[in-house]
Amino acid sequence: MGPHPAVAAIRLAVRRVLHDVLTEHTRSAERTRRTPHPELAEAGAGRQRAALPERPDTPLVLVACSGGADSMALASALAFEAPKLDVRAGGITVDHGLQDDSDARAAEVVDRLTDMRLDPVEAVAVQVGHEGGPEAAARDARYAALDAAAERHGAAAVLLGHTRDDQAETVLLGLARGSGIRSLSGMAAASGPAGRYRRPFLQLDRQTARKACLVQSLPVWDDPHNIDPAYTRSRLRHEGLPALEKALGKGVVEALARTAQLSRDDADALDTWAAEADRAVRDDAGRLECAKLYALPPAVRRRVLRRAAMEAGSPAGSLFARHIEEVDRLITGWRGQRAINLPGRVEAMRQGGRLVIRQS
Amino acid sequence: MGPHPAVAAIRLAVRRVLHDVLTEHTRSAERTRRTPHPELAEAGAGRQRAALPERPDTPLVLVACSGGADSMALASALAFEAPKLDVRAGGITVDHGLQDDSDARAAEVVDRLTDMRLDPVEAVAVQVGHEGGPEAAARDARYAALDAAAERHGAAAVLLGHTRDDQAETVLLGLARGSGIRSLSGMAAASGPAGRYRRPFLQLDRQTARKACLVQSLPVWDDPHNIDPAYTRSRLRHEGLPALEKALGKGVVEALARTAQLSRDDADALDTWAAEADRAVRDDAGRLECAKLYALPPAVRRRVLRRAAMEAGSPAGSLFARHIEEVDRLITGWRGQRAINLPGRVEAMRQGGRLVIRQS
Repeated sequence: MGPHPAVAAIRLAVRRVLHDVLTEHTRSAERTRRTPHPELAEAGAGRQRAALPERPDTPLVLVACSGGADSMALASALAFEAPKLDVRAGGITVDHGLQDDSDARAAEVVDRLTDMRLDPVEAVAVQVGHEGGPEAAARDARYAALDAAAERHGAAAVLLGHTRDDQAETVLLGLARGSGIRSLSGMAAASGPAGRYRRPFLQLDRQTARKACLVQSLPVWDDPHNIDPAYTRSRLRHEGLPALEKALGKGVVEALARTAQLSRDDADALDTWAAEADRAVRDDAGRLECAKLYALPPAVRRRVLRRAAMEAGSPAGSLFARHIEEVDRLITGWRGQRAINLPGRVEAMRQGGRLVIRQS
Repeated sequence: MGPHPAVAAIRLAVRRVLHDVLTEHTRSAERTRRTPHPELAEAGAGRQRAALPERPDTPLVLVACSGGADSMALASALAFEAPKLDVRAGGITVDHGLQDDSDARAAEVVDRLTDMRLDPVEAVAVQVGHEGGPEAAARDARYAALDAAAERHGAAAVLLGHTRDDQAETVLLGLARGSGIRSLSGMAAASGPAGRYRRPFLQLDRQTARKACLVQSLPVWDDPHNIDPAYTRSRLRHEGLPALEKALGKGVVEALARTAQLSRDDADALDTWAAEADRAVRDDAGRLECAKLYALPPAVRRRVLRRAAMEAGSPAGSLFARHIEEVDRLITGWRGQRAINLPGRVEAMRQGGRLVIRQS
């Protein structure tokens, strides 16, 4: 008799990702052997090649584990699949220090991961700041700790337990920003430096992960933050999404996850187009020509304008659709407007058929 | 003392649209005077020119009015603004025959529109079928009746009372389909044959329309369907959206409406790209070359494949993302798959480096 369907599902999802990681690891190892690292080649230094971290033949894959159902299921699947593929498997748990007993809980997670024969296993304590609100600050601290751990251990990948339900929530959070399809594209299956972070469960629902823990008798920890209505994501999970499902039908989570994938591909294609257009609409001196900008489709033109504003020093996070729309009107609705102020002391103005965007 | 802000807002919205309609009407009248209609020029018939409907100098704009707050506000604003711009204003109410007293209500709406000095004013009774569910069937019948009325009266435009709230609901309904950004783009400000249908209130909230009726002492009719939980849109309006607002904050409706506009522009740009790519990826015999398809960004390739399937006779309404994904795997994951069946007896297969999509 095979494993329970939920266990089979989580293992298959992890196996696929490990295959990808292995393939890339092998390719990258071959490249390293055959050709010098481009930066080192520029420095012309055979001497420096020795400074590259040694790449062991058996790559290490870490799982980021909070002790919750999603990441415990992920850890169990990694522990099962890694040895079969000659991959080393380790685990990291981040102690955010936001609850009284968080260090005891982190120690408990370390014990469980060790019981699964993961190695290395580590608890990392972080200081959560305040920047961008409690959720963003916790996330920033967490990823910084995971990045550091991945570097320290020379990990080829870090697996994250985000499920399709998390993805649906992320899409709705992006929708609430109303800033376009990039913010609808949710989390990528691979992200971070060199695609370090992998999300094997992005097509799997939360219920499957929970079931897989249950049938494997894995104790799971329910983070009280996940049901605390002070958190936007928690309200969305427990009130927003269920109400939406009640109104629109049970397929909403799946539809949102599919929207994420389609939006991501669309946003990528439009970014490619904008990068090409960015070169095509400039005069010999590299200045943006208004007539050529005018001829672009609005969606492409606005992306070119956004790129130009960011290049001039406007920070992506505070550059909103309404800013770009105002700059766009210098092209599409020119009636002698004054210079437009953008975040980061950047200004945009029209001068003699050219659009000038620069730091003031 | 000027009008109440809500009344000022609805009038401004209508005035802007009437300006656009007038500008287009004048341009089109000039074109008609200067050059023969292209189809008639082909027939080479000066004689047939007389058969063109006469274009009176004063264009007629109709308002589609259910008697509800949105369309009553719209009618009142049209009645106020049209005479100032030398536009004739008329009104149509559609009797869907879905409620017992629907004919009496239609007669009442006719009276109210006549009291506003709209002319012509007409009630049109329709038969609602069953195709696509009750909401879609009612909509189809309504637009058919409005199209016919517009033709009959030679109207330059038909105004519809959809508000920003309706737009937000439409985006969520599209989101639930999970079929990509085109279905997130909601309703257009101008749609239908030659942009006949105009939606002046698409940036205005429902509350403003209701307030404008209240302060103008316009009696409004609350369609019981709008609060009947049997209807998806009604559930969304009274449960889904409020829950989403509670979780995400009050700006959700505005964010959804902005998402609609951005998605529409993005979808338009990608469709343009796909139309160009469609020509570029064909061999001399007009067949799709797999290698060239492979080189396209996934978002563009999938649109080219969708176009090709529709050209071969696959009906747009039953051609889903999963169909296109399967065809896409003939390009990106070729391992000798069999022909793929698509709706409308269309099949897609790979033959000698070419992708063949045809009716079987």
